[in-house]
Amino acid sequence: MKARKLAIVGATGAVGQEILNVLEKRSFPYDELVLLASARSAGKKIHFRGTDYTVQELTKDSFHGIDLALFSAGGSISKEFGPAAVSAGTIVVDNSSAFRMDPEVPLVVPEINPEDAKKHKGILANPNCSTIIMLMAVFPIYKLYGVRRVVVSTYQAASGAGAAAMQELEEQAKAMLAGQTPPTEAFPYPLAFNVFSHNSSMYPENGYNQEEVKMVKESHKILHREDLKISPTCVRVGTFRAHAESIHLELEQSGDLDTIRKALSEFPGVQVTDNVEKNHFPMPLEVSGLDDVYVGRLRWDLGDTEKRNLQLFCCGDQLLKGAALNAVQIAEIL
Amino acid sequence: MKARKLAIVGATGAVGQEILNVLEKRSFPYDELVLLASARSAGKKIHFRGTDYTVQELTKDSFHGIDLALFSAGGSISKEFGPAAVSAGTIVVDNSSAFRMDPEVPLVVPEINPEDAKKHKGILANPNCSTIIMLMAVFPIYKLYGVRRVVVSTYQAASGAGAAAMQELEEQAKAMLAGQTPPTEAFPYPLAFNVFSHNSSMYPENGYNQEEVKMVKESHKILHREDLKISPTCVRVGTFRAHAESIHLELEQSGDLDTIRKALSEFPGVQVTDNVEKNHFPMPLEVSGLDDVYVGRLRWDLGDTEKRNLQLFCCGDQLLKGAALNAVQIAEIL
Repeated sequence: MKARKLAIVGATGAVGQEILNVLEKRSFPYDELVLLASARSAGKKIHFRGTDYTVQELTKDSFHGIDLALFSAGGSISKEFGPAAVSAGTIVVDNSSAFRMDPEVPLVVPEINPEDAKKHKGILANPNCSTIIMLMAVFPIYKLYGVRRVVVSTYQAASGAGAAAMQELEEQAKAMLAGQTPPTEAFPYPLAFNVFSHNSSMYPENGYNQEEVKMVKESHKILHREDLKISPTCVRVGTFRAHAESIHLELEQSGDLDTIRKALSEFPGVQVTDNVEKNHFPMPLEVSGLDDVYVGRLRWDLGDTEKRNLQLFCCGDQLLKGAALNAVQIAEIL
Repeated sequence: MKARKLAIVGATGAVGQEILNVLEKRSFPYDELVLLASARSAGKKIHFRGTDYTVQELTKDSFHGIDLALFSAGGSISKEFGPAAVSAGTIVVDNSSAFRMDPEVPLVVPEINPEDAKKHKGILANPNCSTIIMLMAVFPIYKLYGVRRVVVSTYQAASGAGAAAMQELEEQAKAMLAGQTPPTEAFPYPLAFNVFSHNSSMYPENGYNQEEVKMVKESHKILHREDLKISPTCVRVGTFRAHAESIHLELEQSGDLDTIRKALSEFPGVQVTDNVEKNHFPMPLEVSGLDDVYVGRLRWDLGDTEKRNLQLFCCGDQLLKGAALNAVQIAEIL
């Protein structure tokens, strides 16, 4: 689809800014661009591709004549304004969790289930960052041998909670290094020099947090496999913008490491960093700002002669493949 | 055993310093204390329990008349000087990996296998920090229901690599916050605002690092259960001195969460921090400087009606229960 008139909702946020970068980098085609944000950010100037844009206040009337809107302003904004956009004839690619589990809304990772995108009824949803990064690393192996169970522990960056959280991590680190009390507003606990269980809401009935349940349910929807067992533990660590994940897979069939490495290397959007000799594997500082998901530490369980229990570690930029890039890729396949 | 004459080998290191703190806090009985370290640190003054000590150079003649020596100066020092100490009639509690897998040397977590300590032939080994912290969280559950498989991903602090590594993390953070290149000497990559696969040597034949193999083999030895499946992934994160671990257990029998919480709360050296309502669980900043291992996030796999697949998260001070405290506890049970 050539979006004649394109809108970015939440243009001043961490993901919104990355969407602009991705559009520029990929020469995404459009004739006119409209930047929308809350009243608080309206009036801000953004210089982009040689043009000065004034951020406009998002209202239900913002979408007249807009062909495509990329929403990235949180779930409540998407719920409030997404249907208005669709009514105005706009196709919405939504980065929030608002519509992800709606059976009418395709949930798409373009390298994995592009065919689902065709079934949209006006809204397409971008999956959660941890889900995308995990599935990019797991899907090439899943296609080869099948997967029965995924046990995953995340090392999630501040960026998942937005630009203010990234700023807070920096201010906390400065305060702590100066022997002062770190400010905590974006997060419930200091993230600098710390690790804590993911700050999303908890489900008291099962002890999981929302981020973990997203990883399970969204993966089921994307893979069309509700019986896939996924055991997630989502954890924040003091990194700025790339998530890492430690993954244990129980395969349906015995596997071969060389075949797995080849499949991962050939899969679009995945890179293998698995240098045992130099102890060099995917890490947040090295993948920040990069488009692909990096996979390494590929190995069988110690003593697993059947080669059915595989371990791996992956890392991807939360703002790019985890959010902005995947959203723009969805727009590209429309 | 009342150690009349006690020696600390590696008294100026990160663990050595904590051993002194632990001895003081627990009023460990001795008549005379000798502080030993490398020639580089010899001559340093340490004020302890109202007395000024001069650190003496470690030589093979250092152990005449020493009843008990706590070694914490790395594996090569232990290998070189441990046997000399034993020849001089000294009982050695060694914090390095030098003798841990020696069948003649008991490997002891006093809350778990105190009876093994009695079989010593002069040397007792203190397990690896990640092993101790994992087993403290897992053992009470293991005793209740049996465990078939452990999948564990660690979030390990700088302190495991010594005082210089803790200092480096601080300097790296300062440099990065000032937009400068972070110094990397203690670690191969910057740890500040990063996460990387554990920096211990790799086994090219299986893709594991030494830290991970320690967690497997040491657990087998401590539990006397060589068939227990353990799938470890050891990762460094930018924290100073407490390790965290995300653990998935496949139990041999169906379990009950209230019974598990009760068993953990009643186990010496373990505390339960599992406040789902407040999203408050064990975290490095809160457990740093504390003796116990903190356990939380106790929950079954989503959809696990059999209650056989348990998830949990634990956190413990690497320098205390992970090293100095456990070593002093071993000395106490002798």
